[in-house]
Amino acid sequence: RMLRRVLCTVLFMGALPSLAEVSQGHISVVLLGATGDLARKYLWQGLFQLYMDQVSSGHSFTFHGAALTALEPGQRLMFDVLKKLACPPDESPNRCAVLKDQFLKLSQYHQLKTAENYTVLNREIETLLRQEGLKEAGRIFYFSVPPFAYTEIARHINSSCRPPPGAWLRVVLEKPFGHDLESAQQLAAELTSFFREEEMYRVDHYLGKQASSLQCTGPCWAVAHILPFRDQNRQFLDPIWNRHHVERVEIVLKETVDAKGRTSFYEQYGVIRDVLQNHLTEALMFLTMELPANVSRAEEVLQCKLQAFQSLRGLEKNSAVLGQYQAYASQVREELQKAQDYISTTPTFAGVLIHSDNLRWEGVPFLLTSGKALDERVGYVRVLFKNWAYCAQSETLRDAGHSQCKTKQIIFYIGHGALNTPAVLVSRNLFRPVMPEGSWREAVGQSDLHIFGQPLSDYYVYSPVKERDAYSVLISNIYHGRKDFFITTENLLASWGFWTPLLDSISQQPLRLYPGGVENQHLLDFEMVSGEVAFTLAEPVELLNTNRLMPSDYSAVQSKFRQSPLVSAWSEDLISQLASDIEKAASRTVAHSGQFHLALSGGSSPVVLFQRLARHHYAFPWKHTHIWLVDERCVPLTDTESNFFSLHKHLLQSVRVPYFNIHPMPVHLNQRLCVEEDRGTEQYAKEIMALVANASFDLVLLGVGTDGHTASLFPQSENGLEGAQTVVLTESPVKPHQRMSLSLPLINKARQVFILVLGKGKHDIMTLLSRVGRKPRKWPVSGVSPSSGQLVWYVDYEALLG
Amino acid sequence: RMLRRVLCTVLFMGALPSLAEVSQGHISVVLLGATGDLARKYLWQGLFQLYMDQVSSGHSFTFHGAALTALEPGQRLMFDVLKKLACPPDESPNRCAVLKDQFLKLSQYHQLKTAENYTVLNREIETLLRQEGLKEAGRIFYFSVPPFAYTEIARHINSSCRPPPGAWLRVVLEKPFGHDLESAQQLAAELTSFFREEEMYRVDHYLGKQASSLQCTGPCWAVAHILPFRDQNRQFLDPIWNRHHVERVEIVLKETVDAKGRTSFYEQYGVIRDVLQNHLTEALMFLTMELPANVSRAEEVLQCKLQAFQSLRGLEKNSAVLGQYQAYASQVREELQKAQDYISTTPTFAGVLIHSDNLRWEGVPFLLTSGKALDERVGYVRVLFKNWAYCAQSETLRDAGHSQCKTKQIIFYIGHGALNTPAVLVSRNLFRPVMPEGSWREAVGQSDLHIFGQPLSDYYVYSPVKERDAYSVLISNIYHGRKDFFITTENLLASWGFWTPLLDSISQQPLRLYPGGVENQHLLDFEMVSGEVAFTLAEPVELLNTNRLMPSDYSAVQSKFRQSPLVSAWSEDLISQLASDIEKAASRTVAHSGQFHLALSGGSSPVVLFQRLARHHYAFPWKHTHIWLVDERCVPLTDTESNFFSLHKHLLQSVRVPYFNIHPMPVHLNQRLCVEEDRGTEQYAKEIMALVANASFDLVLLGVGTDGHTASLFPQSENGLEGAQTVVLTESPVKPHQRMSLSLPLINKARQVFILVLGKGKHDIMTLLSRVGRKPRKWPVSGVSPSSGQLVWYVDYEALLG
Repeated sequence: RMLRRVLCTVLFMGALPSLAEVSQGHISVVLLGATGDLARKYLWQGLFQLYMDQVSSGHSFTFHGAALTALEPGQRLMFDVLKKLACPPDESPNRCAVLKDQFLKLSQYHQLKTAENYTVLNREIETLLRQEGLKEAGRIFYFSVPPFAYTEIARHINSSCRPPPGAWLRVVLEKPFGHDLESAQQLAAELTSFFREEEMYRVDHYLGKQASSLQCTGPCWAVAHILPFRDQNRQFLDPIWNRHHVERVEIVLKETVDAKGRTSFYEQYGVIRDVLQNHLTEALMFLTMELPANVSRAEEVLQCKLQAFQSLRGLEKNSAVLGQYQAYASQVREELQKAQDYISTTPTFAGVLIHSDNLRWEGVPFLLTSGKALDERVGYVRVLFKNWAYCAQSETLRDAGHSQCKTKQIIFYIGHGALNTPAVLVSRNLFRPVMPEGSWREAVGQSDLHIFGQPLSDYYVYSPVKERDAYSVLISNIYHGRKDFFITTENLLASWGFWTPLLDSISQQPLRLYPGGVENQHLLDFEMVSGEVAFTLAEPVELLNTNRLMPSDYSAVQSKFRQSPLVSAWSEDLISQLASDIEKAASRTVAHSGQFHLALSGGSSPVVLFQRLARHHYAFPWKHTHIWLVDERCVPLTDTESNFFSLHKHLLQSVRVPYFNIHPMPVHLNQRLCVEEDRGTEQYAKEIMALVANASFDLVLLGVGTDGHTASLFPQSENGLEGAQTVVLTESPVKPHQRMSLSLPLINKARQVFILVLGKGKHDIMTLLSRVGRKPRKWPVSGVSPSSGQLVWYVDYEALLG
Repeated sequence: RMLRRVLCTVLFMGALPSLAEVSQGHISVVLLGATGDLARKYLWQGLFQLYMDQVSSGHSFTFHGAALTALEPGQRLMFDVLKKLACPPDESPNRCAVLKDQFLKLSQYHQLKTAENYTVLNREIETLLRQEGLKEAGRIFYFSVPPFAYTEIARHINSSCRPPPGAWLRVVLEKPFGHDLESAQQLAAELTSFFREEEMYRVDHYLGKQASSLQCTGPCWAVAHILPFRDQNRQFLDPIWNRHHVERVEIVLKETVDAKGRTSFYEQYGVIRDVLQNHLTEALMFLTMELPANVSRAEEVLQCKLQAFQSLRGLEKNSAVLGQYQAYASQVREELQKAQDYISTTPTFAGVLIHSDNLRWEGVPFLLTSGKALDERVGYVRVLFKNWAYCAQSETLRDAGHSQCKTKQIIFYIGHGALNTPAVLVSRNLFRPVMPEGSWREAVGQSDLHIFGQPLSDYYVYSPVKERDAYSVLISNIYHGRKDFFITTENLLASWGFWTPLLDSISQQPLRLYPGGVENQHLLDFEMVSGEVAFTLAEPVELLNTNRLMPSDYSAVQSKFRQSPLVSAWSEDLISQLASDIEKAASRTVAHSGQFHLALSGGSSPVVLFQRLARHHYAFPWKHTHIWLVDERCVPLTDTESNFFSLHKHLLQSVRVPYFNIHPMPVHLNQRLCVEEDRGTEQYAKEIMALVANASFDLVLLGVGTDGHTASLFPQSENGLEGAQTVVLTESPVKPHQRMSLSLPLINKARQVFILVLGKGKHDIMTLLSRVGRKPRKWPVSGVSPSSGQLVWYVDYEALLG
């Protein structure tokens, strides 16, 4: 009855479609958590805006508020909210009053607690539609409830509240979606058992937050505009949107507020989960993804985004600098009633360096930064271009015009900060951007404000004609089924997959304490050094030390192992040390004899070393380095099992070793593997003799197996432990059994031998080795003893101490 | 007699050494061209300064002015000059007066015209020394004469005027030293037949010019201070003096004056020979060379400099932008009495992009710029660093301190310009430089001047305590035998070797005309684009077109050759076109099928193409490209004759093609070359079958021999012209005879075939081919006709039109 009356009223107003259009169907919007904070502040207003916008769209609507509260108090609470709904300034007061009245009549409260409640809701919707003779278009369920409630509600909706075939279901979920990859996967798996992918609309929180809220609409706004901007300005951006032209990209959200009053949430999440993993990552994706031909095709956009995720280089501990404002710990202790000695390891500031390995962005640093209690509130995405120009005229003359020698940048300014309004800024010496006229206007007659080192007059500045309420935009996107504004499961898991290793590795890392506000001064400035980041001011700064056992505690560790020098540290530090030692040896040897012959082992331990060498040792004299294999599995070189393949993947493809200097073992000759009569071992031996003076490698890197094997020389091996043969075929107890290996006598001719041992699994053999003598037939590694060279053991704490 | 008197006087003054010290020996200084302009203005004063400085060194001196003028008038002219010698302000007038008197008495005029004159001079010196009982330490001959006179004077000195064994000879020569590699080699060869390398002191003109002169002391000053600065600041520079930290380097000498009055010299030389080849190149060398452990060892410095020369990447036509000020042509016509239609092709402005390929500087642009009639007079060497910092505090706060986010640069400022004094400037956020206290003082309390975009207060600024007269410094260096301040023959020839190819290639290139002075505005600004430079303002600009036949004149050239598309241009443009077409094909194919199979021919023509691909096509999808060989010579791959070696040298070592994607032909198996039973052809065929779909290459690049051969398929070949075999062994009529080649049927399966033909030598065969049909046994290339692919001919004008 109510619905018919509304439809009539609407028709009477004359501003509305014919009944044929109305027959496009009915939409039921269910707001779960209808009396909660978010609903009260933003969601109902957003739904009302949707109604005002779409009342003439051909769809009819009903709005169902729901909560755990019993019917009557719930109704009262909800209608208290609805009565206060505001009319937007661009709406005529008359029309708004009429529509508000209708909206109230179309809205209803439901208690949704038990399975039966959901069945009842479903029945009511069905009844209503039957009575009104309306076709059902779809149902929207907006989850404005804590994540722990998601699964149960989802189960009920799925079993009792699905619309009939032909009508769609859209469930709207707000972050957080897990706090690491595992929890996100679990939540996703649960939700996936109730909803199909296309039914889920995951909202990035910031997307939804109000412009006037403390935290944003920032990123939301910036994120949403990057892709359209790239699309509309293809003609200008196509030639320059790549590593040849982009110097760096900064994605920044700085807050002046701290976490006071919110520590119960914040202590669990921290700045990376709260801001970087979601909002800043979204911006990163929209910046780095390849641009699909048609950006309005959500599927293509999502596909490109996932590809961009796959290109990201994995984060390491030193990819981030972390801080915590000084008052945080006491706020946590107070609000969460923790003991006085409680130490929080939650970062409230993070600066992260991200690299993409695709062709377009290789080498371009993407800096993501966010923090609380900083000196200013500001958010922006800044793309700084390289300057390729030389200006032949003097500076004075140069500054008069829009010289090519001035800084070139594009800034998606989120608001606040010096500019104090959202804007898109493009340096005038870049191009005049194409901006859709209806929604953007050029700012003119500006002040003498400086933004990123340049007067505002150096930029084309555009600001949005009208800032729409963020939740209205959000709800409108749900209504229009614009899935590309939401986070798909794949997207979400890709993001967690990317961030979780960093979160794991830093969870017990020291944090830099900062006073907060302008007093931070240069304390949080950081710098890129060899592909990593570090705070610029090293000392004197108060670190928040966590309870992790630090390497320095082991300073007493013996410095000899089996009478040879021993280097020991936590594995990551050990690898760094080993990589620098290898580089030093290489530089020294190249300076002395023009080339460096390096023989590398296969296996898993060296992989981290290879990556480190590839990513952090730009000065390594690769051009003069010969790469040899210590041992190889008898599989084709392109087989993923091949030692050479792993070496290539993790090292060779990233550095410039000349083709002629690369010496894979010839295990694959005449289309067969390690056949004696193909004489691969002889061939390799000859190659060594021909190129390596005295067959004495400059450096041989070895590992140790739990059985004491090294290279592919296994206990009781018939070949390679002694005798004149320099390269041998051997048998491994594990698959693939056939191997090729340098012999022990050849290894012992090397000028340096480094043995790398990592992980708890090696502790037993290391303990044993520390006690036994030279028994190569029993433990081949015990036979390593360079006759005129040096042996150094690199053993991590886990292998050494268990 | 005169000498003894002087020695007595000196001893009487009490400021002088004992006779034992005096016995260190006597030095005779002979100034050739003693009455010329340079001698009058600077050289005699420099010699007087030397005498004042060294009178107590233990050496005794005589000074011999010489010229073609007869004795009496010559004497008169010379003593007129000597009487006017000035006393330096830091010398007591009394001492100076006494020393000047002595200097006059020690100086003598000689007519040096005939061989006999030289013999007489020699006899006089010998007699004098014998009379005074002095040992001879050495003789300095200063050539202040035009270069055409060098050879004859050198011959006379060598045959008649050499000092006796045990005493040294130093001849001082001033630039120009030739005007290209050939002329420099010739001059050097002549001089080398008279003097040993260690006897020659070549003076870079600017080194010698007076501070007050219009052109300099600029570069001289800057050049001379770069190396000591690098040496004294090793601790700061070592980590940052490389491609990871240096963004770009600018070496600049701008003049406001034009060439008026000097066109007879200038018209022969132009800005590159006048300034870039010598002065700016010297600065470049001192910046890029490796720093020897001891910079005071001249030999080590010279060695490092030569190595730096060897690392320079060869210049191409597009490495430079050139201009000529508008009034120049009429000045030349007037001063040199040329006809009204005379067109000068001499550049008066040049901007050159130079790259060094050594590990330290790979990828760093070095911009050398100089010109006349520019808007300001200034000279500097500017090293701009990359900025690796992110500053977490707001800009306002940031600007208060010496933030890491500000620009970082080191500037060797030559004087004039905004600063109007020589100086060394180092950004305060870099380091406080170590400067020798005696000779440098820190400038404090500065103005609000901006230098390179930053207020002067952002720099540590040092200026020289005392500017010494440049010729005094020069003469002092000769006296002290500091050969590292002079240009060795090797150094000179290395510089000409580097510049001559550019000078040749640009000699007939259009020049941009510029009005001169501030009116030039942005007209001479230039930009780096894909490793080349181009003026930023492309149009509308007046070009000075030379009489060279331009490609556009050939616009009517047929667009088909043997029924296939033909692309034709001057060879450099043709190569650019071909390289882009290959890149386009590669990108398209990779986008479509994920990989690109490219088969490349050997020979000399493709070398330029390889270089172009390596240096200018950064976006080429190398990671997904497979490289195959069309043909190979039966030599080891590391033999310089090998096609693969050339391919590697000019292309592969500079790009990132994965190891697995590189497919050299297996001509070298079992330590022997192309033996049938080693089945290399079969092996290559199998590799192709395994990796290339349908054995259909995406692109095959071929050439043509003068006999009509293509790939290694020669006329009348028994293999490869037909039949099922895909890879064959063939015989070449020229050495090395044995070859491996793809067969014609396999080539014809390719999706695209490009044939590249360059040079006059190919004109006859091209004419023939344009007339004959398909006769592969006679002309194998006539059999190229892809069955379902496309054939395109790339033929340069010389091959096409003769």
